[in-house]
Amino acid sequence: MRMVDIIENKRDGKELSTEEIQFFIKGYTDGSIPDYQVSALLMATFFQGMTENERAVLTMAMVESGDQIDLSQIEGIKVDKHSTGGVGDTTTLVLGPLVAALGVPVAKMSGRGLGHTGGTIDKLEAVEGFHVEIESEEFIELVNKNKIAVIGQSGNLTPADKKLYALRDVTATVDSIPLIAGSIMSKKIAAGADAIVLDVKTGAGAFMKTLDDSKELAKAMVRIGNNVGRNTMAVISDMSQPLGFAIGNALEVKEAIDTLKGEGPEDLTELSLTLGSHMVYLAKKASTLQEAREMLEGVIKDGTALEVFKTFLQSQGGDASVVDDPSKLPQAKYIIELEAKEDGYIAEMVADEIGTAAMLLGAGRATKESVIDLAVGLVLRKKIGDQVKKGESIVTIYSNFEDVTEVKEKLYENITLSSEKVPAPVLIHGEITE
Amino acid sequence: MRMVDIIENKRDGKELSTEEIQFFIKGYTDGSIPDYQVSALLMATFFQGMTENERAVLTMAMVESGDQIDLSQIEGIKVDKHSTGGVGDTTTLVLGPLVAALGVPVAKMSGRGLGHTGGTIDKLEAVEGFHVEIESEEFIELVNKNKIAVIGQSGNLTPADKKLYALRDVTATVDSIPLIAGSIMSKKIAAGADAIVLDVKTGAGAFMKTLDDSKELAKAMVRIGNNVGRNTMAVISDMSQPLGFAIGNALEVKEAIDTLKGEGPEDLTELSLTLGSHMVYLAKKASTLQEAREMLEGVIKDGTALEVFKTFLQSQGGDASVVDDPSKLPQAKYIIELEAKEDGYIAEMVADEIGTAAMLLGAGRATKESVIDLAVGLVLRKKIGDQVKKGESIVTIYSNFEDVTEVKEKLYENITLSSEKVPAPVLIHGEITE
Repeated sequence: MRMVDIIENKRDGKELSTEEIQFFIKGYTDGSIPDYQVSALLMATFFQGMTENERAVLTMAMVESGDQIDLSQIEGIKVDKHSTGGVGDTTTLVLGPLVAALGVPVAKMSGRGLGHTGGTIDKLEAVEGFHVEIESEEFIELVNKNKIAVIGQSGNLTPADKKLYALRDVTATVDSIPLIAGSIMSKKIAAGADAIVLDVKTGAGAFMKTLDDSKELAKAMVRIGNNVGRNTMAVISDMSQPLGFAIGNALEVKEAIDTLKGEGPEDLTELSLTLGSHMVYLAKKASTLQEAREMLEGVIKDGTALEVFKTFLQSQGGDASVVDDPSKLPQAKYIIELEAKEDGYIAEMVADEIGTAAMLLGAGRATKESVIDLAVGLVLRKKIGDQVKKGESIVTIYSNFEDVTEVKEKLYENITLSSEKVPAPVLIHGEITE
Repeated sequence: MRMVDIIENKRDGKELSTEEIQFFIKGYTDGSIPDYQVSALLMATFFQGMTENERAVLTMAMVESGDQIDLSQIEGIKVDKHSTGGVGDTTTLVLGPLVAALGVPVAKMSGRGLGHTGGTIDKLEAVEGFHVEIESEEFIELVNKNKIAVIGQSGNLTPADKKLYALRDVTATVDSIPLIAGSIMSKKIAAGADAIVLDVKTGAGAFMKTLDDSKELAKAMVRIGNNVGRNTMAVISDMSQPLGFAIGNALEVKEAIDTLKGEGPEDLTELSLTLGSHMVYLAKKASTLQEAREMLEGVIKDGTALEVFKTFLQSQGGDASVVDDPSKLPQAKYIIELEAKEDGYIAEMVADEIGTAAMLLGAGRATKESVIDLAVGLVLRKKIGDQVKKGESIVTIYSNFEDVTEVKEKLYENITLSSEKVPAPVLIHGEITE
């Protein structure tokens, strides 16, 4: 088999065989197929797409290119949630304790990564003492005992995907739905998920800017999952404006606590209940989505979810008293209000640009070497559709430096007021189950 | 400027700027842009094509990536002829002396290369003593004196094209008309041509199998030439069967001599006169094509063309007496006839497969290391449309080994007889001048 023939087949729109895809992934992983042939194949794939079968084969070839996490010692159906990434997305912190409270095992492997704020691990480290450096035996024990634990990424997971992603990044072949879908799904499957709930974001702050693209990506991932024997579904949720109010690490931990108490932002609560219902349902802890939702509302109301969160933090060395006294979380030195310059209605809050403003404060990493400031960030006081009076605060800025001129400018530029009433955006744009 | 943005622009169908193309060719030549980005750009180009302006800029960027031959000391308009390659194509050997006899300077830089038979230099080396290892001063002097000389390829011509071609070969990006056209034209321009006559072959034995593709390639090259200030035209000629009768080095030299005497195969003579007329016209030695053709017929009839050929051979150390006594050329040990197995008309003579049969005899190089046997090859006794009787010779095989079973099988497989009359193929399929 020759790689040049595989490239030519894809270029000419032929379906690649299982053997061809496996040959290419194996050869690329072991270094026998060079980057320059792979990038040509990726570009041909950008133009010709991939069939449903090719996508499933590619995903599994990437899964098999490295280690696979064995979660078989964890009781129950392991349901993983994945978000395609947005701004101020606190759902992971909320969902974990929430579904664990209903006996759904949450065995979360997480990373740090680059972005507007830190990853899940960074956020949790805002709780003093909390750490994810635990052995896998302890991790499995903790999940069996508490139904929730988080461990740092270890092992050589999907090395083919890592190499491919790095190559796509420099060859303008990132924006290919089959390649994006295969990349995400291979990581989830290698991490041991039995079932997967996807939160596909759509809008200005999302990777997929249009609803059509978001739906296409969601469908692609759901089909891959179901074709390789993982029960998978996707929710398409709005990211035209940031989710919830908080954007920043400690600020989001506080927001998660509020939400688990039933006092969180409406949109974050609603999305958490929607995603959570599907997780509970896929884990077979409820026989209908409606039943699952009522169970979730129950564990918020009776405090069980909050208790699970406390136990989880404590079990991994964290100071659980922050749950009752969030002032123990890292606090920023300066609290500055962004005041409305005129009366009106919030018409636009460009999510990714607002995320960048949070990063300017130090809430996220621009490069791997950046150090995150866990205390800082933004809390939105208004969201799209809200009425605002001149001088009223739109955003509260939490900063460790006094001069936030640049941050304010960025915010003013990306928050638009209208004199006319503006409807609030729809939160859930659809659900994809097949 | 970043290469990844250039790839993305091409991917999205935008026209690349002059600066972007120059940046990419310069960076690829000096090694600062890696193969894997270039192959992605090539594949995007395969799908998106190139505008007329992009093609011209690419061609000149490749010309400027290395040395350029300075032919300014040669008097007159230097008209180069280029063939896209076929089987048994003896036109270069015929055309050189033919147009030189009319005062058109032929300053030929030639290579050896791989193929069914040798390159022009290999063929000429069938004449004892002939060599192309001359200094460029002597080369220029010879052209000014005799109007014709051949020199081996030297200098670092179009290194960008060499790197690109090697990369295209392993990334399934060879079959892109803008890239093929740019590659050919850059070499001709770097070799110092003022005007260019292209012989674009079409049919089974050609690189371009269909007339549409051949016309598209011809148009692409003619436009590049004219856009960068080189008067360029193309003739589309038939390569469904080999051109002329002879396929093999010494055999083709003999055929060239016959043709210069006015006793050559009809198709080779006609194509030489057609291409030659355009060369003479572009060199401004005639004011109409008809006048040019009559002048060419004149120098064949009065023996001037043959005299020029003799002087040319002698000036580069060759034994010119072969012209009067072709038996002095290398002779094969065995002369074997391929006899018709039945009565009929020749319906098909698959050019490239017949070329491969000649290569099996040793007439061409399969790899750079192969040694060419100058004496061997094939001479067609019949061509498409000719009537043949059972037992009559269709092809004469000139071999230095006795057992030619494999060669005969290849020929029988690729020469089809029909019981019905078959028309001879059209030789000239069109001319492209703009």
